[in-house]
Amino acid sequence: MDKSTEIYGIRSVIEAINSSKDIDKVFIQIGLKGTLIGKLESLIRKNKINSSYVPTQKLDRLSKKNHQGVIARISPINFLNIEELGEKLNSSKNPFVLILDQINDVRNFGAIIRTAEISGVNGIIIQNSSSAPINSDTIKTSAGAIFNIPICKVNHIKDAIYHLKSMEISIISASEKADKNVYDVDFKKPVAIIMGSEQRGINKSVINISDEVVRLPMYGKIESLNVSVACGIFLYEVVRQRI
Amino acid sequence: MDKSTEIYGIRSVIEAINSSKDIDKVFIQIGLKGTLIGKLESLIRKNKINSSYVPTQKLDRLSKKNHQGVIARISPINFLNIEELGEKLNSSKNPFVLILDQINDVRNFGAIIRTAEISGVNGIIIQNSSSAPINSDTIKTSAGAIFNIPICKVNHIKDAIYHLKSMEISIISASEKADKNVYDVDFKKPVAIIMGSEQRGINKSVINISDEVVRLPMYGKIESLNVSVACGIFLYEVVRQRI
Repeated sequence: MDKSTEIYGIRSVIEAINSSKDIDKVFIQIGLKGTLIGKLESLIRKNKINSSYVPTQKLDRLSKKNHQGVIARISPINFLNIEELGEKLNSSKNPFVLILDQINDVRNFGAIIRTAEISGVNGIIIQNSSSAPINSDTIKTSAGAIFNIPICKVNHIKDAIYHLKSMEISIISASEKADKNVYDVDFKKPVAIIMGSEQRGINKSVINISDEVVRLPMYGKIESLNVSVACGIFLYEVVRQRI
Repeated sequence: MDKSTEIYGIRSVIEAINSSKDIDKVFIQIGLKGTLIGKLESLIRKNKINSSYVPTQKLDRLSKKNHQGVIARISPINFLNIEELGEKLNSSKNPFVLILDQINDVRNFGAIIRTAEISGVNGIIIQNSSSAPINSDTIKTSAGAIFNIPICKVNHIKDAIYHLKSMEISIISASEKADKNVYDVDFKKPVAIIMGSEQRGINKSVINISDEVVRLPMYGKIESLNVSVACGIFLYEVVRQRI
């Protein structure tokens, strides 16, 4: 953990949340009790912040400071909310959005951010929970691209999708199980591409509200591409069609 | 190092080379002298085998056995030579080859093999020296694809290119410095795509004998894609055009 992006102590973490610091994750010692910790827990629930209950040894490894059983990791970037991203998209000629449904591998996440920045994506939407953290590995594999592209964090991907739909942005899910080929889709209109995790793919409830579900043709014995590679191919199909 | 793919002792390694076992790399203790070691060194030179001189501590970490200062790592797959790959390409309707010019990152190498297998590449050509090893990490990141696609190892990429050219296969190099856009190239004919390492790109002498040098359009501040992502986009442009 990068020391510069870490807050320790119950009161400090409560203050950080109240001052709307972008908290990546809060680590709380298992079995910790008291009024203050109860206050922190309700703040975490209210703000839907990513948190974990861990043994004290884990906290000691994270920080040598007097952490009082609570450490919060601050995100090195500022996230947008969906309204703020919407405003940015309004000023784009032809919105191009990438939605990541629980991509939890840090290297894939970083590589995807890098490709998105290069291919001209206007913004990336991730979910608060079950997303890979933004840490030094993410920054490194993104080649620093993470500082050049708006990232929007939402509580539920579905709410973000409804917001984009209200802006007449087509929602295209990438799934190996789809019947339709990616090359048969029109990407010249405003689009948001959704990529899911390698383990579970895109959530069914998200697939259900998508406008189209498309696949890449595959000819090998191996049944799926690495998600960052697949994402690159999808994003560049948008690039190709828009040239 | 996977113990099952390791040979130790000077005589054993000499025997392995003589029986044309696919040696991935030979590690030799710095300062080792004698007739036998001289014989091994000339065999290594003659067969252009990848080798490294290392301190004895490194050898001790690689193997707890009585290694006598020499350990060879055996490749878990059998490589083809260029003539054998040529025969396979002869039986392909429309040859599709991938050439890797000194990709030395194991994870990128594995991801590229995975994408190549899925996109229907007939064979991958790598160079004997300065290529990533084929170890357990390569196998894992390739999702096992490495066992399903022919891999051809050559002493010099250039010789392989001349061989492919004699078979009327077009050689297309991927380079960020190219003027021509990848989408302006005809991939319906037999092609070999060359990808270079992220650090140095494709060797100039290889670029010079290519039929075309092409780039992907890029719109971000970041100047280059991850090589396994870029490779996926190139390979799928071939797939798209051939559908």
